[in-house]
Amino acid sequence: MLVGIGLMPHGNPVLDPPDEETKKLAKVLRDIGREFSSVDAYVLISPHNVRMSDHLGVIMAQHLISWLGFEGVELPGEWETDRKLAEKIYNAWKESGIPAVDLHFASRSGQYSRWPLTWGELIPLQFLEKKPLVLLTPARRLSRETLIKAGEVLGEILEGSEKKIAFIVSADHGHAHDENGPYGYRKESEEYDRLIMELINENRLEELPEIPDELIEKALPDSYWQMLIMLGVMHRVPVKLVESAYACPTYFGMAGALWVRK
Amino acid sequence: MLVGIGLMPHGNPVLDPPDEETKKLAKVLRDIGREFSSVDAYVLISPHNVRMSDHLGVIMAQHLISWLGFEGVELPGEWETDRKLAEKIYNAWKESGIPAVDLHFASRSGQYSRWPLTWGELIPLQFLEKKPLVLLTPARRLSRETLIKAGEVLGEILEGSEKKIAFIVSADHGHAHDENGPYGYRKESEEYDRLIMELINENRLEELPEIPDELIEKALPDSYWQMLIMLGVMHRVPVKLVESAYACPTYFGMAGALWVRK
Repeated sequence: MLVGIGLMPHGNPVLDPPDEETKKLAKVLRDIGREFSSVDAYVLISPHNVRMSDHLGVIMAQHLISWLGFEGVELPGEWETDRKLAEKIYNAWKESGIPAVDLHFASRSGQYSRWPLTWGELIPLQFLEKKPLVLLTPARRLSRETLIKAGEVLGEILEGSEKKIAFIVSADHGHAHDENGPYGYRKESEEYDRLIMELINENRLEELPEIPDELIEKALPDSYWQMLIMLGVMHRVPVKLVESAYACPTYFGMAGALWVRK
Repeated sequence: MLVGIGLMPHGNPVLDPPDEETKKLAKVLRDIGREFSSVDAYVLISPHNVRMSDHLGVIMAQHLISWLGFEGVELPGEWETDRKLAEKIYNAWKESGIPAVDLHFASRSGQYSRWPLTWGELIPLQFLEKKPLVLLTPARRLSRETLIKAGEVLGEILEGSEKKIAFIVSADHGHAHDENGPYGYRKESEEYDRLIMELINENRLEELPEIPDELIEKALPDSYWQMLIMLGVMHRVPVKLVESAYACPTYFGMAGALWVRK
């Protein structure tokens, strides 16, 4: 059963908030952690792990191990894969014609069956009690329809499970908010982020697929594709928004949102 | 242009040979390194990196970084991907209908574009001068025909390149040679290894596709699938055997072989 969904950023500032907005965002993230403290497993989708153009990834490796922090912020730790749930998701995607691959590493099982984690997973995980998880990866070159369908199939699997599962979407939004940042300033980052927060807060996520390619390309988000998968999950499990927050303390926009099942 | 092919084991004993046979094997590995010391790049296929059931992998990440040794033997180091060559191989496989994925990690470029290496790559690399490389991964659930075709397409790309390239096949053979080893003793490991060395030494690798499934399953090799890709490469670039060696100092069989273009 899917108990809820957390949209969580992966920027270092939420670990040590520099301003009031980021403090409010960090509070939402802590609330997500508290809300999901009794689940059996998380399914976590991250844009900063393995990145394939046109296939979704299901990490099957047993041990998920911290490997790569951002700007020197190392967050050591080790998590375990819920392999049975991972296999269910992979099999369901394959049976539904969703382009997906199963990802083992080094060995198929045992101590060498490991997978590296980055800030994209490690920062959300800082706010979540340690539980088994399934790590998924999105793909930017799949069609919107395919991504939504992948979410619908995922929603059916999560809802059909005897376990209590939370779906965690790791995502940051526009990356061109600061003329001194690595991507400079583009008004589209502001526009995209404002729109995303409107769609979240006004329960209008059904409009997500209508966002024009051009706006997405110019805004430089790493949120859009996994949010389409999230929309598909929401098609299968109705949820209601509990709270949300947005902050942009540096060059990229960060959003937190907590939904629980209706 | 493909200058040659090296079949290289990835067992720790070749680093510090415990007996005469393993010393002879290590000499072949050093000869491979010397023969290929003037190449521009390696293409290295390894069974102990990412493992997908039914898709070949082409690692696109820029920095290839030591992450996982076997039985405590850590081999630190960092290599660079020849990304142009990696893209050529990926594109050619996709255009030929070979199931393959492009694998980035964390970021698409720059310092965070990294990929972890294991003993499967690190041990062959100990014998090879540091050069840019393309890391590929095999897949056990692709048909023999598909694996051979993937090798033929790869051979065309390597041969058509203006660079001098060596193809390195990381592989160990039967894993059930020792009743006290992790997989116990099975006569099929001996049978498989003897057959592989005959096919190599008697220039009969065309018989590789005829090896029965049952023998492969019981022998527990991690060589068969990438050797089928190697056979495909040999279909496009005729090579001659220079030398070979075999050793089995512990529970798994190790082979080294050097081929150069005719």
